[in-house]
Amino acid sequence: MTARSFEIDARAGHARAGVLRLPHGTVPTPAFVPLASTATVKSLAAAEVEALGYEMVLGNTFHLFLQPGHELIARMGGLHEYMGWRRPIVTDSGGFQVFSMGHGSVAEEIKRRRGDRETRVLSIDEDGVRFRSYVDGAERFMGPETSMEIQAALGSDIALAFDECTPFHSGRDYTARSTERTHRWLDRCIAWRREHAPAGQLLYGIVQGGVFEDLRRASAERVAAAGVDGIAVGGSLGREKAEMHEVVRWSVGGLPEEPPRHLLGIGDVDDLLAGVAAGIDTFDCAIPTRLGRHGTALVADPGARWRLDLTKRAWSESREPIAPDCPCDACREHTRGYLHYLARIGELTAARLLTLHNLTFVAALMRGIRAAVVDGRFDEYARGMLAGASPY
Amino acid sequence: MTARSFEIDARAGHARAGVLRLPHGTVPTPAFVPLASTATVKSLAAAEVEALGYEMVLGNTFHLFLQPGHELIARMGGLHEYMGWRRPIVTDSGGFQVFSMGHGSVAEEIKRRRGDRETRVLSIDEDGVRFRSYVDGAERFMGPETSMEIQAALGSDIALAFDECTPFHSGRDYTARSTERTHRWLDRCIAWRREHAPAGQLLYGIVQGGVFEDLRRASAERVAAAGVDGIAVGGSLGREKAEMHEVVRWSVGGLPEEPPRHLLGIGDVDDLLAGVAAGIDTFDCAIPTRLGRHGTALVADPGARWRLDLTKRAWSESREPIAPDCPCDACREHTRGYLHYLARIGELTAARLLTLHNLTFVAALMRGIRAAVVDGRFDEYARGMLAGASPY
Repeated sequence: MTARSFEIDARAGHARAGVLRLPHGTVPTPAFVPLASTATVKSLAAAEVEALGYEMVLGNTFHLFLQPGHELIARMGGLHEYMGWRRPIVTDSGGFQVFSMGHGSVAEEIKRRRGDRETRVLSIDEDGVRFRSYVDGAERFMGPETSMEIQAALGSDIALAFDECTPFHSGRDYTARSTERTHRWLDRCIAWRREHAPAGQLLYGIVQGGVFEDLRRASAERVAAAGVDGIAVGGSLGREKAEMHEVVRWSVGGLPEEPPRHLLGIGDVDDLLAGVAAGIDTFDCAIPTRLGRHGTALVADPGARWRLDLTKRAWSESREPIAPDCPCDACREHTRGYLHYLARIGELTAARLLTLHNLTFVAALMRGIRAAVVDGRFDEYARGMLAGASPY
Repeated sequence: MTARSFEIDARAGHARAGVLRLPHGTVPTPAFVPLASTATVKSLAAAEVEALGYEMVLGNTFHLFLQPGHELIARMGGLHEYMGWRRPIVTDSGGFQVFSMGHGSVAEEIKRRRGDRETRVLSIDEDGVRFRSYVDGAERFMGPETSMEIQAALGSDIALAFDECTPFHSGRDYTARSTERTHRWLDRCIAWRREHAPAGQLLYGIVQGGVFEDLRRASAERVAAAGVDGIAVGGSLGREKAEMHEVVRWSVGGLPEEPPRHLLGIGDVDDLLAGVAAGIDTFDCAIPTRLGRHGTALVADPGARWRLDLTKRAWSESREPIAPDCPCDACREHTRGYLHYLARIGELTAARLLTLHNLTFVAALMRGIRAAVVDGRFDEYARGMLAGASPY
């Protein structure tokens, strides 16, 4: 399936420019995939995400399983139809969410919204994970087969195999045992699909192994050999940028060229550039949309980690746009001062305008990256961006 | 000033179709004016409000006074420039907000957002109102001159005179005394403007008088005689629809034809129709936008008060749009089932799509009303709408 679904058009070092052919459309790569965790890119209608130039979004298996439920979404015609998004969708496996509860770090935003109804892990074993739902307190279960079944019902273009996402503080022994189990779970995902494969849906296996070079290299080899359509790099990638970039290189370095590669949960400008340089084709991350909802705009300022915190008093009377060369509605129509005020008082309009801006920034960056790989000048482009060049 | 700023094109009974000529553009009437209380129509960028066909929005003197402050907005070029809205703006006087605190009914949404920092009235006298700010707990003051000064700094096209908004439970004596004070405050607003009049800004006086026919008629006469550019009808309009419509008729019945008339805080479909029938030209109201943020769509269903509560379980698997003939993004692209889900989980996308839908509904209604008045068939149009006709 791999050869048919992914073609590499150009290379620059390890970086590749390609095209992913999926049931709902083609995705030029390298590409960033915005999160539509709860069947929406928060604050944007599906048509607006299309208009920004994105070809694929990521739906969240865990959240959609609990609410509104994958059976309901299947009855409504599948996730594409349900959310009014006609282009490709990748669904994560639910592993990250289900395990981050157990490891004591439920995503902040869920916690805040749900009040007392926290999700708690009840048990983890070879079968999967038993936990209490944050929606209604009911006991629920997710294992490799459940995850595949949910993703089949959602009808995504790309499903991810169920994995354990080991946390930062895991030692080598726990990480090794957990990675082995993730590999056994991959085999079960592949077996489930043999019986129930939804037409055209690709399956990506997930490379784990924490911050340990030998575990990462072994995991990459094991996943590639299992017979998957693509390979995702997951788990803890290290505490610091340099370590993270190295972990990505270990995870990707030994992989065959053909299968497309996805890097999970990474989206800072320097990390996207490092990922592409290591040979990653697609990325998903909460950063651009989450920062936007919390008053921070992405800007060409490496010294500030490409972040402009508009909630700071310094911007209250600024009549500048976020970026004069940005074509988004926030920059064409509004000042930093106005956005500062809206963000400070928590107005929905701020969340929306900054989400639009941040996704416009990342879309421009990814277009620039792809063009640079195609033109054989990716290194130069990356150096420029790391020195503060504008992506527009 | 009146004769130059408002022209009546057509009449049907007491109903009028006209054009308001204001410094920032013309407003065909009857017109609905969406709330941009905090310098934004919540969840929409200014350009989107324009695209919906609205010619004017209402800014909130009280909220903008407290945050970010009218001096700051003036330094930023005035409210139009600050919020990126190029068309006319009417600003309320702050009277409603400042008094609703004192009378124990601070707008629910402020309360919810601000937590402990409640706004409290400290004293009310002939000069004005002393109160504690919900933003920072500081003691602040607002009287007729303050209100005019703030509205001058904001640079709105239409300023409203500072008034006391008497609550439902006020007796005849309190209402009579309060209405007299509102009239004296109007004189002070007019006097302030004589010295400091911002070029082109119209001043509307406000008719009060509670639910008492003689007080309403006397107030209307007094305000009309004071020499204002337009007349707004404010205050408690009664507990029931029939009473409210009667209070509006008392307030407007004796007014001269020429000045434009605004009805404050009213926006249900039947009330808009009754208001137009009584001779009202413009309306503002939180209903369409607030309902949208809370999961309710406006629909052609008089039996349900034109409300469709999408948060109800009944809609969870509906594949219908809200209204098949509605041209808004929510209706063209999405199902009731999807909007139900988004509204239930409190997604920003639901607030936004339903705000777009509700403002599309009201814009269509007001266009229909105006066309009907011009064509001399307003009664027929109103009967049709009250019987459940679609406004699209």
